[in-house]
Amino acid sequence: MTSEENPAEMAPTTADLPVLKVALLGCGVVGSSVARMLVDNADDLASRVGARLELIGIAVRRPDRPRPDVPVDPSLFTADADTLVRGADIVIEVIGGIDPARELILTAMQHGASVVTANKALLAEDGPTLYAAAGEHGVDLYYEAAVAGAIPIVRPMRESLVGDDVQRVLGIVNGTTNFVLDKMDSTGAGFAETVEQAQSLGYAEADPTADVEGFDAAAKAAILASLAFHTRVSIDDVHREGITEVTAADIQAARDMDAVVKLLAICELVRDESGAPSGVSVRVHPAMIARSHPLASVRDAYNAVFVEAAAAGELMFYGKGAGGDPTSSAVLGDVVAVARHRLAGGHGPTESAYADLPVVDMGQATTRYHISLAVADRPGVLAQVASAFAEHGVSIETVRQRVLGEGDERASLVIVTHRAPDSALAATVDALTGLDTVDAVVSWMRVEGA
Amino acid sequence: MTSEENPAEMAPTTADLPVLKVALLGCGVVGSSVARMLVDNADDLASRVGARLELIGIAVRRPDRPRPDVPVDPSLFTADADTLVRGADIVIEVIGGIDPARELILTAMQHGASVVTANKALLAEDGPTLYAAAGEHGVDLYYEAAVAGAIPIVRPMRESLVGDDVQRVLGIVNGTTNFVLDKMDSTGAGFAETVEQAQSLGYAEADPTADVEGFDAAAKAAILASLAFHTRVSIDDVHREGITEVTAADIQAARDMDAVVKLLAICELVRDESGAPSGVSVRVHPAMIARSHPLASVRDAYNAVFVEAAAAGELMFYGKGAGGDPTSSAVLGDVVAVARHRLAGGHGPTESAYADLPVVDMGQATTRYHISLAVADRPGVLAQVASAFAEHGVSIETVRQRVLGEGDERASLVIVTHRAPDSALAATVDALTGLDTVDAVVSWMRVEGA
Repeated sequence: MTSEENPAEMAPTTADLPVLKVALLGCGVVGSSVARMLVDNADDLASRVGARLELIGIAVRRPDRPRPDVPVDPSLFTADADTLVRGADIVIEVIGGIDPARELILTAMQHGASVVTANKALLAEDGPTLYAAAGEHGVDLYYEAAVAGAIPIVRPMRESLVGDDVQRVLGIVNGTTNFVLDKMDSTGAGFAETVEQAQSLGYAEADPTADVEGFDAAAKAAILASLAFHTRVSIDDVHREGITEVTAADIQAARDMDAVVKLLAICELVRDESGAPSGVSVRVHPAMIARSHPLASVRDAYNAVFVEAAAAGELMFYGKGAGGDPTSSAVLGDVVAVARHRLAGGHGPTESAYADLPVVDMGQATTRYHISLAVADRPGVLAQVASAFAEHGVSIETVRQRVLGEGDERASLVIVTHRAPDSALAATVDALTGLDTVDAVVSWMRVEGA
Repeated sequence: MTSEENPAEMAPTTADLPVLKVALLGCGVVGSSVARMLVDNADDLASRVGARLELIGIAVRRPDRPRPDVPVDPSLFTADADTLVRGADIVIEVIGGIDPARELILTAMQHGASVVTANKALLAEDGPTLYAAAGEHGVDLYYEAAVAGAIPIVRPMRESLVGDDVQRVLGIVNGTTNFVLDKMDSTGAGFAETVEQAQSLGYAEADPTADVEGFDAAAKAAILASLAFHTRVSIDDVHREGITEVTAADIQAARDMDAVVKLLAICELVRDESGAPSGVSVRVHPAMIARSHPLASVRDAYNAVFVEAAAAGELMFYGKGAGGDPTSSAVLGDVVAVARHRLAGGHGPTESAYADLPVVDMGQATTRYHISLAVADRPGVLAQVASAFAEHGVSIETVRQRVLGEGDERASLVIVTHRAPDSALAATVDALTGLDTVDAVVSWMRVEGA
């Protein structure tokens, strides 16, 4: 029998394909998953790329530490990341943080490597430097895993929606805070005890600051806004409020108006009076959102990004925003893309910042407020309260008044406004606090997604 | 004042950029929207591409017909599509159908043009021919708009998830049928009157066959399965059942088990006993899906694609699946991508069919059944019915029995099975029909998304 008659000998093999050298920086939860997928899926990846991806080294702080969950030759572990990146075609950076990640990425690019990174902090702080280096050296910079883990959102923003005009992005991009707020909604419990529960279940870090104070979401907001509006936005431009002051009473107030509280990353195009784009608003804060909105049904630690574009209309992308394997899925998708470019020539999208719109102050952002007041139950109170809104140019959408109990001389007044500048809304709350008929501003929160 | 001192004269301009020639084939709802966006957004598109996109012609059947909604020089309209495509860098095909679209695309590629198409029918019938021509001539073939309109799903499948292993795709990819089923659910009305309502509202064609019989969804299923499993799947491989036989009673039966009925495009990896991939199941049929499933909340004419991947876990992509502007958004995103390749070199993903898995018969697909029986209300009936399931190797998950009324000698029996081969489930239904204790199989429907 000749080889031509033997289908087994004719079967396609990936052994003869060209080789691309891959260096991995970091071997924590994400890095070890990336290493496993590179090894376990080697044949499939080779078929999809048209080249074998050879893992040439994994940079870690302690190369001698046993890592039984990473199925690679232990000699691949090295503490010398700098040397490692100089010999690679593709560098995967999953160390996180600013330094030494930035220097290693720049060194890798100087030596001709394309870079795939999950590093939201670095991109949000200094993305333009990375882009400039990628452009200078003709290599790729990909970072799907930096925003919303496994959910394809960076590529859709950079490529799928690039022929359209994005108007607004509303993202649930932090799983820890979504878990906490969702549990507060379903159990009625307070913030502190719910964070403890999240910690015991592994959904929150021992020090949850980066999540609950909104730093993580703010970095992702900066990245999304940059892509959506073709404008440089850094994390320092992002107005940030966390969820530490969200109370069980706030959650109940949301329930009463058939809404939920979510920590939202919001990126909005601001227009001048002629309708032309004049700026962008980028902010992270808790907000009430109607239960009928697609984002309201995002439960547990899931992430979702809701996009409104001029032609596409409303889109939503939903999935797991964190975890080793989901983040790896995004990393490996990027690795295949940049590997294909190494073989076929060309490169992926470069920085697009031509629109160069100013980032507006939070005070200029327009939003809606939900305000709950404790007031005296007597004639004229509502008129006085309504005047405070009118004086600040804030239009009221709904008012709900409720007497607290038989013979009680106080009432509860719940007001939801129309859209107005945040500064006008804040000034209204201040003015209400000073009214003698208002015992207390019990709670106030922004309302989004209308 | 020198020009260096005048910011206005220093402002970036797109007038000096290189030009790429774009030919548009078809000027219906989608084509006219594409033409408008090319004109209205010309400067933004030029900035994003790095080249101006010059519309060199629009091929239509009747070039003399006035088209006031298309803001282009009327001399651009031509009946000579063949000549038009020979002079273009990028050809946008939104004619639809097999011929002459196929010949025009092949001619365009032979003459060096990259092609962006929304033509699901052609891709599902003869995609490999188009891919082969693109490969031979070193041009791009992009088709985001062919599946689920504005929703980025083709690019995520081809690029974002290409480092992962897709296990299952469940798609609501036809807006007309989703509108009809959603309205049947919310109003309790029957199929025929709901289709009439959809027609009067513009959600269904005068001849709704392509939608309600599942042909449209089957083409999209073939495209999604090809991408998900790196395997050629044509529309002829897709098992197809429409929604014309879905009754108000079926919808009510779904409600009774806290489920909704959706027309699903299902693409599943089939594994052998060792767990290795051994085939793919690709099918379109109505199915019950629990209200808690993310797909259940997809209302009206919206589309959504739910993807399960080994590493990424569960993802969902949601948005508008049809309409001129939403479809244009997807087309223009592709146009920018292929235009960037013309400038920077390289090309997008080529056909990936290396896995070459067989498409299994519907009988081998595993699914679950919901079966509603009218039975005699006497001892031993359940035992006889249960035996019919057991004889066919079908395991029962739940049984609910209900006496129909005081003194009535008949009862209703609602059974939901575990997963089993569709042939075994169908044989069970046949066997039940023959039992003397079973008056009628009132309804049966597949259950998905568990």
